[in-house]
Amino acid sequence: MGRLVVIGAGLIGGSFALALKQAGVVARVAGLGRDPQAMARALELGIVDEVCATVEEAMRGADMVLLAAPVAQTGPILASLLPWLEPETIVTDAGSTKCDVVANARAALGMRIAQFVPGHPIAGSESNGPDAAMAGLYRGKKTVLTPLPENDPAAVERVANAWRTCGAIIHTLSPEDHDRVFAAVSHLPHLLAYALVDDIAAKPHADLLFQYAASGFRDFTRIAGSSPEMWRDISLANRAALLTELDAYLAQLTTLRARLAAADGPALETVYANAQRARRAWQEAIEAGSPPPPPNQDIE
Amino acid sequence: MGRLVVIGAGLIGGSFALALKQAGVVARVAGLGRDPQAMARALELGIVDEVCATVEEAMRGADMVLLAAPVAQTGPILASLLPWLEPETIVTDAGSTKCDVVANARAALGMRIAQFVPGHPIAGSESNGPDAAMAGLYRGKKTVLTPLPENDPAAVERVANAWRTCGAIIHTLSPEDHDRVFAAVSHLPHLLAYALVDDIAAKPHADLLFQYAASGFRDFTRIAGSSPEMWRDISLANRAALLTELDAYLAQLTTLRARLAAADGPALETVYANAQRARRAWQEAIEAGSPPPPPNQDIE
Repeated sequence: MGRLVVIGAGLIGGSFALALKQAGVVARVAGLGRDPQAMARALELGIVDEVCATVEEAMRGADMVLLAAPVAQTGPILASLLPWLEPETIVTDAGSTKCDVVANARAALGMRIAQFVPGHPIAGSESNGPDAAMAGLYRGKKTVLTPLPENDPAAVERVANAWRTCGAIIHTLSPEDHDRVFAAVSHLPHLLAYALVDDIAAKPHADLLFQYAASGFRDFTRIAGSSPEMWRDISLANRAALLTELDAYLAQLTTLRARLAAADGPALETVYANAQRARRAWQEAIEAGSPPPPPNQDIE
Repeated sequence: MGRLVVIGAGLIGGSFALALKQAGVVARVAGLGRDPQAMARALELGIVDEVCATVEEAMRGADMVLLAAPVAQTGPILASLLPWLEPETIVTDAGSTKCDVVANARAALGMRIAQFVPGHPIAGSESNGPDAAMAGLYRGKKTVLTPLPENDPAAVERVANAWRTCGAIIHTLSPEDHDRVFAAVSHLPHLLAYALVDDIAAKPHADLLFQYAASGFRDFTRIAGSSPEMWRDISLANRAALLTELDAYLAQLTTLRARLAAADGPALETVYANAQRARRAWQEAIEAGSPPPPPNQDIE
């Protein structure tokens, strides 16, 4: 493609730009963002070739726009693009929630909604900002697209191809299925990890506790190092599905608490053993999966 | 020392034996355990020099005995050692709970309790068994001793020195403080991780969910790959402290649920930001800590 615009050039947007540049499939990357320092850094790191001062400037001749900002900004950003959205430009996003993104995109873009292809790369890190961006971030990872009925299949294919060039494997889900799945396997764990660290930090003997926290704690709470703003937005955007998962988990914990209070060893061991078995099966399936595809190879 | 006996030659006992052998401070390591296959494997791997068929045979001329088995076995194992416990032999353990271990040790050893020095190395892995053992497991990690009033300081020092030879840094806590601390930073996270994986695995669309679980889920649930028997025992042994921590966490989750249900973005962000700040401060403190000491160096 000729011109890519990344809105937000941090971990997600920056890695997308770097991967496409490294593959040589994009002529010029323009950056647009609310944080001038981050944009200057992205320019310095070669993530973007130019930093645009206005939406109009960014959108002129754009082939593709990737929106990579906290999901609550989706509506306002898309509304700001609309006046300068050329007919051939495809807009996609990298938001971790999809129902609200689609609803906000419809409200913002109206008749031009066909030009918006919703997406979510399943890759990340608790680090963020341009310095965290890397060309290999999406290699062998899934990118979920949740195409709209209005989307031209060719537009969906252009977005899918860009992600494949980054090394990602394309999956397709409905926005509703997407949000239910990620509430369970991603959004709930984030909330639980944040809650645990906040709980410990608020205790009077927090310093003593943290002193003895070791590798189990480190890994369990790694995701609590993630951006609070991003995860506030995700929690609110996927609130209904997240509440459903949180309630199921609270019920599970309440049952487990009763078993622990009753010193019911066999019942505890059953839960622990089920979990160990399921976790091992999952890990084996992941490890048995096909190796990460090289860039540019089509894999569905 | 001349003769070390490890009761259980898996990850914990095996790594202790390997480190002391590598440092050249032990003449002979004898293994004793309930699983003949694991003991044979430990012999094959050079973790132990002999596998003993009886307690009597193992204990003859033993300088130090490390008990490295699930904590519920502490009482029965110590009772079985008592008839063969020579006056100069020091017995220590590696159990993740200390109040119950001390109570069971007192009941089992009676007047000989002075020969038992309770300990807990803060190192591990979700893998277990002799194949998981490695000489470097304890390098730079803490080992907590919870000495008893009856212990001769020289006996405590012998145990401390053995752990220092493994590269560990010795800390001292009361059994009560130990159990409160590890309920919060280790036992509760294990229970939460097991509960989450079991909860997901029980859902009708578990396969779909696991398919999209990524690195955040992987790290959050790594500890759910741990031994169910070991963690059943720890949960029961430290039940009171674990229930206290679980109740505090349930209260925290209930508050967070209300904030989420009310779509209170600022309140969610406050919790997430507190957690991120505390987690980062903890990580920086860990990283700023002195580098792991070389074996044989005394570090308090």
